[in-house]
Amino acid sequence: MKLEKMVGDRFKEKPSDCVIDSHALMVRGGYMKNVANGIYSQFPPLKRVTEKIEHIIREEMDAIDGQEVLFPVALPGSLWEESGRFESVGSELLRFKDRNHSQMILGMTHEEAAVHLVREYGNSYTKYPFMIYQIQTKFRDEARPRAGLIRVREFTMKDAYSFHTSQEDLEEYYKKCYDAYMRIFARVGIPQVVVVASDSGMMGGSISHEYMLLTPVGEDTIVLCGECDFRANMEAAECIVENSQKLPQEELALVDTPDKHTIEEVCEFLKLPVENSCKAVVYQRNADDSYVVLFLRGDLEANETKLTNYLGCAIHAAVITEECGLKAGSIGPYKLEGDYTVLYDRSLEGVANLCCGGNIDGKHYTGLDIGRDIGGVEYGDFAKAADGGICPCCGKKALKIERGIEVGNIFQLGTKYTKPMKMEYLDKDGEKHNPIMGCYGIGVGRLAASVCEASHDEYGPIWPIAIAPWEVHLCCVRADDEESHAFADKLYDTLQKKHIEVIYDDRSVRAGVMFSDADLLGVPVRVVVSPRNMKNGCVEIVTRDKSVSKQVALDEAVSAIEELIMTLSS
Amino acid sequence: MKLEKMVGDRFKEKPSDCVIDSHALMVRGGYMKNVANGIYSQFPPLKRVTEKIEHIIREEMDAIDGQEVLFPVALPGSLWEESGRFESVGSELLRFKDRNHSQMILGMTHEEAAVHLVREYGNSYTKYPFMIYQIQTKFRDEARPRAGLIRVREFTMKDAYSFHTSQEDLEEYYKKCYDAYMRIFARVGIPQVVVVASDSGMMGGSISHEYMLLTPVGEDTIVLCGECDFRANMEAAECIVENSQKLPQEELALVDTPDKHTIEEVCEFLKLPVENSCKAVVYQRNADDSYVVLFLRGDLEANETKLTNYLGCAIHAAVITEECGLKAGSIGPYKLEGDYTVLYDRSLEGVANLCCGGNIDGKHYTGLDIGRDIGGVEYGDFAKAADGGICPCCGKKALKIERGIEVGNIFQLGTKYTKPMKMEYLDKDGEKHNPIMGCYGIGVGRLAASVCEASHDEYGPIWPIAIAPWEVHLCCVRADDEESHAFADKLYDTLQKKHIEVIYDDRSVRAGVMFSDADLLGVPVRVVVSPRNMKNGCVEIVTRDKSVSKQVALDEAVSAIEELIMTLSS
Repeated sequence: MKLEKMVGDRFKEKPSDCVIDSHALMVRGGYMKNVANGIYSQFPPLKRVTEKIEHIIREEMDAIDGQEVLFPVALPGSLWEESGRFESVGSELLRFKDRNHSQMILGMTHEEAAVHLVREYGNSYTKYPFMIYQIQTKFRDEARPRAGLIRVREFTMKDAYSFHTSQEDLEEYYKKCYDAYMRIFARVGIPQVVVVASDSGMMGGSISHEYMLLTPVGEDTIVLCGECDFRANMEAAECIVENSQKLPQEELALVDTPDKHTIEEVCEFLKLPVENSCKAVVYQRNADDSYVVLFLRGDLEANETKLTNYLGCAIHAAVITEECGLKAGSIGPYKLEGDYTVLYDRSLEGVANLCCGGNIDGKHYTGLDIGRDIGGVEYGDFAKAADGGICPCCGKKALKIERGIEVGNIFQLGTKYTKPMKMEYLDKDGEKHNPIMGCYGIGVGRLAASVCEASHDEYGPIWPIAIAPWEVHLCCVRADDEESHAFADKLYDTLQKKHIEVIYDDRSVRAGVMFSDADLLGVPVRVVVSPRNMKNGCVEIVTRDKSVSKQVALDEAVSAIEELIMTLSS
Repeated sequence: MKLEKMVGDRFKEKPSDCVIDSHALMVRGGYMKNVANGIYSQFPPLKRVTEKIEHIIREEMDAIDGQEVLFPVALPGSLWEESGRFESVGSELLRFKDRNHSQMILGMTHEEAAVHLVREYGNSYTKYPFMIYQIQTKFRDEARPRAGLIRVREFTMKDAYSFHTSQEDLEEYYKKCYDAYMRIFARVGIPQVVVVASDSGMMGGSISHEYMLLTPVGEDTIVLCGECDFRANMEAAECIVENSQKLPQEELALVDTPDKHTIEEVCEFLKLPVENSCKAVVYQRNADDSYVVLFLRGDLEANETKLTNYLGCAIHAAVITEECGLKAGSIGPYKLEGDYTVLYDRSLEGVANLCCGGNIDGKHYTGLDIGRDIGGVEYGDFAKAADGGICPCCGKKALKIERGIEVGNIFQLGTKYTKPMKMEYLDKDGEKHNPIMGCYGIGVGRLAASVCEASHDEYGPIWPIAIAPWEVHLCCVRADDEESHAFADKLYDTLQKKHIEVIYDDRSVRAGVMFSDADLLGVPVRVVVSPRNMKNGCVEIVTRDKSVSKQVALDEAVSAIEELIMTLSS
């Protein structure tokens, strides 16, 4: 198409609300426009990119026997009541009533709809396994949408659901999908994506993996081992601590710690290593605001996901009121009185000499030995893995913490949905069972933004040809030059007839404007027709990533372009 | 793909809630499943049909320089407040609040979103004209969803929006789109669609057309002339009446009409032709329940759309209470006292001798002459055109009333949206104007159902090859016969390698089951491999519409199939 007629504006200034490059470049390049918080409209270039991504996803899903279906965006609340998620999912689930006051929701994921669709079909073991998927709009009422298409409220997602008669069969299919996802990410241009073990969260089930594009601007924290191939989302990473006894056992003693509030301040004041301190982190359950006090070693951080999973309910950072009885800055396990849920992280296990809050303003204890002074407590894994920490896989002190964007996820769901929703099949012997499910998601818009994040320069995205909005960006520099314009027109025609996707810029603008627009559109092959080139009997062909830049004779232009596209596509 | 593995069940019994054939066949054929009132999930066959329809629509929209974009499903209420439609549209607009209590709506049409997307872009006359379109999920909270995919609450729609600097330019583009729509309907297999003038309703603007598939099961009423090419939706059809004076003028007289309530009963009792009666039809405004009394000739029916347009507000059939002062069954224009809006249909104009209600229970007037007895009233066109009525175009008494399904619509919108939403461009002279818009819609699922309605037999849909879920339905009758199965397997492979879309049925089921399933899937080319055919050294090739049925030698099967597909596609 002609660039002159394409809707959307391109501009130079970085919008002030864009915190990551892909967001800024996709706004500056006329890819999208914000409509409401976390909700965007797409201009043609982005629509073309996402369509190509969807096509690749479809091919790979079909290749592992996926059957494309379509579920509704608006679903009856009753369906989510069947699975129990109508109650259990937080306010990211958009609930509303229709004109007849029926409870409805906007689908943020479609396990319930999938079970509903095949509940009758899947009545016999002979029908299994099967996988259905859709590519459809979803709505998740995120509290804090951010970073352009990385975290939005409305998005297009490919979500797939597989059904099996045994865990082994699920695992076999899970592996197939695992590999299909690797192919998808490689084909769209980010083969560097890594797979990490993840927390299953509200999806349920036990085993799940996330596909992460490692980048400092990612919002997920990943724990990787430098020595083995352990990789996990921070949410799911086990925290292994070494509690080599550093200080000898002592008597419990209440000491003054005036105006020392953080555990670091207290340790410094008492001249104790922070590894010999026990700090408190306090949460409240969302449902009833009841308090949960977690004690862990002073140098570690609490992992809220692990806490949530242990407690089986949503929590938030506590507001410590006068009435609640807790003394902010001095909370400790010894003589802690009140109706709180108290949890101990295993980092405290076996440390004989700890300092901790005295439950009195300005006082701390030293010499705490939990086994001796508190009695038999149970320890759990509630802490975040730390940089330089011990790998739970190989045992070496080689953990690194990185950040990543989650571009896909796969879950083994078990019977979490089929059981409460009463989906049953008869086995060979005529006995009833609930099928075992897996589910597999990829956010299309987020994937587009991730590729842009992984592949751009300061001037714009550098789209891999497989998902680029066009294959060729044809620039007719000096459209007022008749000979150039005529040749460019003809070249445009010829390329189109060969079904090559061309964006053709023959506007009467300066070459600088033309090239900076081309940079923002990020099309892999740029062809420049200009009076100067014409005089030399050639066109200039350059790739967006600058790896190729050459002059080609006019009559060889088409074949050279075709060849270059072939090379880039292989 | 193999039919054995396809999700969805096919069955014989007509579901009791299906009032039209396409609905029954698409449920029986495993095309879709009801999720909530007016909300469906799609199984693979329907997903494949709709995808092909979407592809055809895309090609035709691109051919008239459409640019594909994507708008959100969930839109901020503020955008609809800008246009005024947040208030003016009824409860079919689904309104809800998000987690931050912001007002949101589910898009039922996207004029506001379209203006929002290009408001900055379209700042200069040089950018015009342009057209943007999307294919996206919409939600319309219909009071009475019915007839399967014909009237649903959630649906996929292609909606296009064009922007112009003059009415002439809009009209030129409107004509292009008009023609593109004819091509779309022809390509999907319903070239018989007719275009009718329509009422613009809540879309605004003046000129609009609907594309109608004429069928007795349609929910729209169409007025067609048998003598010229006048065609209009009943909502928009002008009603022309001939008031040749039949009775001489008489004195006004109050007469007893005991227990006569309908105008027909009264006329029969008084021995007067019904054309000499004046009946009342009463409505109330939705907003404040105030009464609107329409008087029209006894043999005509009120056209609510015309009334609504005239009044500029929504109305409903009145509830006539004791207190309101109206005497149900005896309402007449003479001495009608009370605070009502009173309207006169032009069918009453010039009739000198009318009977009408007496505004007293059991009493009517005869001899009413509105001009003489009521005074100078204004007459309007508030009646429905009637079968055998006068054509407003050629003037002949040749109107026919038919029913149809609206498969598409196009509107000239003027500045209804651009003006309140402050979309402006500078013209050549630097003066500001609001661009003029057109909009163009096609419901994808409804179109699929309409094709099925137009093309089916009692056994299933007869899909035109352009939108059939597959091109070939390969039946291996007696899969237990090794030779047949081997040949069918090979044929399946060969056809797939040639990129022919095949659904392959090699289940161990009776031939009857196999063929009735094939009928329900409606695939145009059926190829039957069976031991008997094998013995004769041939396969059987039949078309779903039975126009072709032949035996073809085994080694000629592939080329015969290719040839048949070619013929059906041309």
